[in-house]
Amino acid sequence: MLKLLILSSEADQYARLIELANLPDLEIVNDPTECDILLGEPRKIRDALPQLNHPKWIQSIYAGVESLVETSQRRDYILTNARGVFGGLMSEYVFGYMLAHEKGIFERFKAQQAKKWERFESGLLRGKTLGLLGVGSIGAHLAGTAKHFGMTVWGYTRESETSKCVDRYFHPAEMESDGLPWAQEHVPAIQKFAKGLDFLVVVLPRTKDTDRIVDASLLEALPQHAVIMNVGRGNAVDESALVDALEQEKIAGAILDVTTQEPLPEKHPFWTTKNLLLTFHTSALSYPEDIANLFIENYILYIEGRPLKYQVDFERGY
Amino acid sequence: MLKLLILSSEADQYARLIELANLPDLEIVNDPTECDILLGEPRKIRDALPQLNHPKWIQSIYAGVESLVETSQRRDYILTNARGVFGGLMSEYVFGYMLAHEKGIFERFKAQQAKKWERFESGLLRGKTLGLLGVGSIGAHLAGTAKHFGMTVWGYTRESETSKCVDRYFHPAEMESDGLPWAQEHVPAIQKFAKGLDFLVVVLPRTKDTDRIVDASLLEALPQHAVIMNVGRGNAVDESALVDALEQEKIAGAILDVTTQEPLPEKHPFWTTKNLLLTFHTSALSYPEDIANLFIENYILYIEGRPLKYQVDFERGY
Repeated sequence: MLKLLILSSEADQYARLIELANLPDLEIVNDPTECDILLGEPRKIRDALPQLNHPKWIQSIYAGVESLVETSQRRDYILTNARGVFGGLMSEYVFGYMLAHEKGIFERFKAQQAKKWERFESGLLRGKTLGLLGVGSIGAHLAGTAKHFGMTVWGYTRESETSKCVDRYFHPAEMESDGLPWAQEHVPAIQKFAKGLDFLVVVLPRTKDTDRIVDASLLEALPQHAVIMNVGRGNAVDESALVDALEQEKIAGAILDVTTQEPLPEKHPFWTTKNLLLTFHTSALSYPEDIANLFIENYILYIEGRPLKYQVDFERGY
Repeated sequence: MLKLLILSSEADQYARLIELANLPDLEIVNDPTECDILLGEPRKIRDALPQLNHPKWIQSIYAGVESLVETSQRRDYILTNARGVFGGLMSEYVFGYMLAHEKGIFERFKAQQAKKWERFESGLLRGKTLGLLGVGSIGAHLAGTAKHFGMTVWGYTRESETSKCVDRYFHPAEMESDGLPWAQEHVPAIQKFAKGLDFLVVVLPRTKDTDRIVDASLLEALPQHAVIMNVGRGNAVDESALVDALEQEKIAGAILDVTTQEPLPEKHPFWTTKNLLLTFHTSALSYPEDIANLFIENYILYIEGRPLKYQVDFERGY
């Protein structure tokens, strides 16, 4: 009999869903010292790690597992994270805000408040270019929605080229000529990527390689009408460079679901930065129904001795 | 040589696009008395109708042609309207506002203004039901986008069942039992349709049959959390019934692109009705590139003597 410990504020709901599945040889327990398998929130699991006697497999209910891959933590188990379930949720969020920007939803509301019948033209997603900084399973889903709306999709990614909906890939190692042969100017691929975008959506995990990848030079490379969104982790953005870019109108807007400090401190400039919207880390919540299905699927693989889905590489960090 | 008159505030742009196509036997003229073909805005064309000596074919650049199908007008020509080009534009608008509602875009902005890190849960389109009142080419496109977001789609339509993305159709003639066999209560199909919806999107042309189709009884049938959008014509909505339903919170919101009087008079209650957003008839503008392509396609059919696309039935009104 395998023993499962659930560490989540929604543990009851997870237990109910898993019990409904009648999985063979599985018992839900409350004692960390006797469990073989854990399902839960990474921080709660991190706090329990030292007490575990024989953890074999841990399933995170979040995509981001940075608190479990720190080098100081034990790594004597298989870690799997939640993937493949957030794409649709993220598409709703990302396209909701991109469309709100194009349709001028706030501007039209102001016109209504002023009782002005103002027929200024809406912008369109159709024909515009979406850049994905990070093309994992979420990025691939966003790319599919972008195609539905007639957009061009560019992806900047370390290696994977898994989505057919991405029209053009850029990679960190490349240097690209700027299209002016006589100038022989070579720019980093990430700047070449940024220059062609109308929207930049950051969907990166927190790793040392993603720290402040959105810096002053990248913000400088974006067109002035561009809008940036961060739905990954706050570490990816140089926050003071972003404030400068927005206040100086070097870009048109930012929508941030994540920040380096959460909750955002009261004195942080982001609360009042021009054209910046905060959404308080709500872009894609983990729904127990989704994650329980993922756990059930992985549990079947586990007892059959087959490789689990979405295994985390501790070194890489995702 | 066929003579084309263009009546639009963007006539120059249309002329340029059509000239680029090098259509055979076609000359663009300025004199209404000598033209065979017209391309333009329905109201401008209506004003010119009495001066025309031998109109053969008129292509409207809008979908709505009510000013050309009034019984007092001449009908001695083929009228075609613009269809098949607004679906994508309407999807951007409709899903922009539906997502803004689900994601609480205005509420989150208020929380930011109050400097409150408020993590209230977003709603999801996934799993919700979109009802289309009218399933023409725009409705069919909206249905496809709804499917992309994992929604169920119901359609209420006079006869056509053209979209495979509509999960269930309702028709005016039907009476449906209310699912309670012992009660034997029969309700009109439109109320049965309304009862199952999270969003009701009205995409109807202006005809005598669509006058105030959204009345107090339909609004009463909608669930309290439902949101209604009108992207068709203002005549479809009983405006005072809608004000009552919103003020009494019988439904959760309304987004109106069209109203019976446009521009909306300054004293109209809609400006300040609770949970009502106005967008000033901007949901889908006619882009000359789209409409010129449609004209060019129809012109080729015309000179080949074949049936034109999107012919309007004067009696039906669309």
